[in-house]
Amino acid sequence: MSNPTAAMLVIGDEILSGRTRDANMHFLAGELTKHGINLSEVRIVSDNRDAIIAALDALRTSYAHVFTSGGIGPTHDDITADCIADAFGVSIDVREDARALLAAHYARTGSELNEARLRMARIPDGATLVDNPVSVAPGFTLGNVHVMAGVPSVFQAMVASVLPTLTGGAPLLSQSLRIMRGEGDIAGPLGQLAERNPALSIGSYPFQKDGVFGAQIVIRGHDGAQVDAAMAELRSLFPA
Amino acid sequence: MSNPTAAMLVIGDEILSGRTRDANMHFLAGELTKHGINLSEVRIVSDNRDAIIAALDALRTSYAHVFTSGGIGPTHDDITADCIADAFGVSIDVREDARALLAAHYARTGSELNEARLRMARIPDGATLVDNPVSVAPGFTLGNVHVMAGVPSVFQAMVASVLPTLTGGAPLLSQSLRIMRGEGDIAGPLGQLAERNPALSIGSYPFQKDGVFGAQIVIRGHDGAQVDAAMAELRSLFPA
Repeated sequence: MSNPTAAMLVIGDEILSGRTRDANMHFLAGELTKHGINLSEVRIVSDNRDAIIAALDALRTSYAHVFTSGGIGPTHDDITADCIADAFGVSIDVREDARALLAAHYARTGSELNEARLRMARIPDGATLVDNPVSVAPGFTLGNVHVMAGVPSVFQAMVASVLPTLTGGAPLLSQSLRIMRGEGDIAGPLGQLAERNPALSIGSYPFQKDGVFGAQIVIRGHDGAQVDAAMAELRSLFPA
Repeated sequence: MSNPTAAMLVIGDEILSGRTRDANMHFLAGELTKHGINLSEVRIVSDNRDAIIAALDALRTSYAHVFTSGGIGPTHDDITADCIADAFGVSIDVREDARALLAAHYARTGSELNEARLRMARIPDGATLVDNPVSVAPGFTLGNVHVMAGVPSVFQAMVASVLPTLTGGAPLLSQSLRIMRGEGDIAGPLGQLAERNPALSIGSYPFQKDGVFGAQIVIRGHDGAQVDAAMAELRSLFPA
């Protein structure tokens, strides 16, 4: 498993207060898995400079890629771009190509490119812009950090802009079997199956529905034949 | 704002792979906010011993409380309890009171208390059990770490068992106003309102619906009169 690793940093008080339920993490997790990049850690921090920079530095030095979500709009609580610049020790200012994108957009929609909106053209030195086909104000990539908006439609469009530029690994294949028995009845043979297949990841996800216990067993790996063989063994251990 | 702080540690490959969408974080965030405890950080890590222990140590030394979710079932990938014991440097073994709970439960339901299920009675030294009215196998509290199951119905029941034992602070009050204008038109006056009210947290959460831009402005604070006054000012700045 030499697939690239990734982490996600979600920036937003609204998620920590329970006001909003994050949707971006689940979306990114699925996209990265398809692309053969292993999402290994997620952190959610508040709109606080020190918290953002500490998390950013920990993640960007530990993983091949970091994806951030939130805090790049025009309001006073949008401080992500400045934090990224500080973390990398580079300056940040309005950049001409980003300003031109915004100017054309607001001219078209008849809105004013005021001081607040111009904040969205502030890009750290050395960054590459990330295309935003939804609402124009760009994200950016600096080093191994990809900075994206928090609004789900914009986040998803930016992920679609960034992912094709990244080298992925072998997609992680998975198969699953739903077993209508308590995990306690499954655990012994399942643990032995996992021991016999160290290259596979075998997970057990219990559920309870209408008072009946069951578990979804998921077998993941990069070698389709290995996954198939383990799944066949699992079926024979627990016939329907 | 001297409310107690908290962090959450979600343990689970299934969330990082995008297979499952986490529901526990959003639930806990809402419950803590009602209880006057500030959820300040969330981390999601995989079912990996080193990753769990590193996150646990970082969080339990930084925040008043840590809530964990996931990895305390009977299968081979359930390693949370052992990681907690290792992080605290205490031993872990089957404990009589936890075993008795399980034995009574499985006798009642006619299942066998086998070796796998007995794993759920392994409790780190010095921990207090957390009641699980849904499926009996207990969670536990050790120091400032509250260890709970990942299955949402069980997680929620355990949170309900733990929260009343914790001292909360003043509940965080919030009011919100939906403004049907782009954030760029709101940002200037909103930033000034935030500067005039340093004791309040004022957030702007943009959305886009049917091609129209708007923002939900949320004013949060512990003093109801202050929140009311700022909200009145916000309404006069942006009349409907």
